[in-house]
Amino acid sequence: MKRPYIIGVMGGGSATVEEIDAAYKLGRLIAEQGWILLNGGRAAGIMEASAKGANENGGLTVGILPDAGPVGTSDFIQIPIYTDMGNARNNINVLSSNIIVACPGGTGTISEIALALKNGKKVICLKFKPGDVFKTNEQQGMLFYANTPEEAINLIIINLKNIAHG
Amino acid sequence: MKRPYIIGVMGGGSATVEEIDAAYKLGRLIAEQGWILLNGGRAAGIMEASAKGANENGGLTVGILPDAGPVGTSDFIQIPIYTDMGNARNNINVLSSNIIVACPGGTGTISEIALALKNGKKVICLKFKPGDVFKTNEQQGMLFYANTPEEAINLIIINLKNIAHG
Amino acid sequence: MKRPYIIGVMGGGSATVEEIDAAYKLGRLIAEQGWILLNGGRAAGIMEASAKGANENGGLTVGILPDAGPVGTSDFIQIPIYTDMGNARNNINVLSSNIIVACPGGTGTISEIALALKNGKKVICLKFKPGDVFKTNEQQGMLFYANTPEEAINLIIINLKNIAHG
Amino acid sequence: MKRPYIIGVMGGGSATVEEIDAAYKLGRLIAEQGWILLNGGRAAGIMEASAKGANENGGLTVGILPDAGPVGTSDFIQIPIYTDMGNARNNINVLSSNIIVACPGGTGTISEIALALKNGKKVICLKFKPGDVFKTNEQQGMLFYANTPEEAINLIIINLKNIAHG
Repeated sequence: MKRPYIIGVMGGGSATVEEIDAAYKLGRLIAEQGWILLNGGRAAGIMEASAKGANENGGLTVGILPDAGPVGTSDFIQIPIYTDMGNARNNINVLSSNIIVACPGGTGTISEIALALKNGKKVICLKFKPGDVFKTNEQQGMLFYANTPEEAINLIIINLKNIAHG
Repeated sequence: MKRPYIIGVMGGGSATVEEIDAAYKLGRLIAEQGWILLNGGRAAGIMEASAKGANENGGLTVGILPDAGPVGTSDFIQIPIYTDMGNARNNINVLSSNIIVACPGGTGTISEIALALKNGKKVICLKFKPGDVFKTNEQQGMLFYANTPEEAINLIIINLKNIAHG
Repeated sequence: MKRPYIIGVMGGGSATVEEIDAAYKLGRLIAEQGWILLNGGRAAGIMEASAKGANENGGLTVGILPDAGPVGTSDFIQIPIYTDMGNARNNINVLSSNIIVACPGGTGTISEIALALKNGKKVICLKFKPGDVFKTNEQQGMLFYANTPEEAINLIIINLKNIAHG
Repeated sequence: MKRPYIIGVMGGGSATVEEIDAAYKLGRLIAEQGWILLNGGRAAGIMEASAKGANENGGLTVGILPDAGPVGTSDFIQIPIYTDMGNARNNINVLSSNIIVACPGGTGTISEIALALKNGKKVICLKFKPGDVFKTNEQQGMLFYANTPEEAINLIIINLKNIAHG
């Protein structure tokens, strides 16, 4: 069996209309590639929008929830994983993704970028500039910037070629 | 969207030929019902056999791994979730399942039965007798016994009717 | 530096007067040995009583809480560790203890006994009979039974001699 | 019982001589205040140095380890808490601290600053400039900068006054 790639989409629980549109489109494009979309699973912001984009376009969606049960879970998540671990679940999000796209967000999203890099995972920032804190990682070819969902998909395709995968 | 049910299959990392056969058949029957099979994800014992049974018969398989990455993951797991949490991931296994089937196992399986009941989840013991430690739970209609995979499936069907599900 | 031993005391959130008395006495005896008492940290049942027994008799008490913050924490816990992990914190309880005493409890306590044994830790059941589910572990010299707190302390002393400790 | 304050000290597993000296001094000053020092517990970099500074000057030290057991634990940690959770334990570090000091570090330390702020904890950066990613948090009075261990201690004293504590 060849496993489908799992693309992690991180980002804030609240987002602007433009950010929501980009996250939906990103979800759609991930589904069209035949990849699985994984995110934080809640019915809010980037999580809801990216899951909706994938789910409405034939993609499979996995949510890693901070909660113990379904209250607050996005309706567009087909496979909810309940951790009951709060923000500690952010580490599971990144470990379970072959590559991570970071959409605009706050400290939760920053923690996910940092944990991804700490665990040796590549990160693509989509219309999100976390400042120069990750400059070294950028120089090491672990962090990338994209201005559109299409650019993010291209960066994923290029980088997946170099990722060992079962 | 109506989410498919997720059936957790717990059991030992080592198992007899007869136990392996029963786990494979259970996996197959779960797939035939259109349910998702969730287990501990490793390439060993009940985990490997039940994932194989589901995967080879058109089912979707999710593994909640104790590890940080793919070494030791069953080839029959399509969606591996890497927790890097060792045995603490047992709690995620049971929280993420609508109902749990406990096949023969050791202390890891006992911990999963106990955590499932602690979290209010129903448990069906398939050819596995953990003794009278869970007698109260049995009397409360939370723990059941099955002698064959078919009996386990019937007990799942009966009990899923009373489980709220998104 | 020689670290003090850490004794894990597990047991139910509700308990009889007699069980509370035994847990208090166990906490006192642990403190008198110069050991640290570690438990689940909540202001209820065996946790509250054992922490009180140690704390009121000069002992140091560590609580591994399922919660994210202090609501519900026992006043007799001097060092509360907040995990925000619900029952998954049970694995941390047993990993962080050199030896575990299991007082009467329900499925949470059973999960802790099972996780302790799974992780290679010795368990002393104090006035608690979990049935024959752990018979093999008893035969392997990993599980013991005590009828009084004094007997439990003696069993701890005997077994600590064979435990590597930094 | 009035619990002692717990001060979290975060920072890299590798560090310059100057950073090691500052971390040792910070540990000593924390001990002299009667506070408990909490860190990631490993025998490396800022963790080792800050634990040594506290331990050699009469302070109590708690380490929240990513590991399942004592290999790699700092000798200056008196109370090691074994999580077996890898980097997910970073969330426990910050939840269990009344306030956090971030010494120079890499992505692990950045994740801890982000998780601390996400959980509503105040962070003092000691000779560490994570760039403008946390500018909003600084403006909200949640993130502070110190140039010396003494300045960090003063900032802790000022901020502890406004933190509810059991």
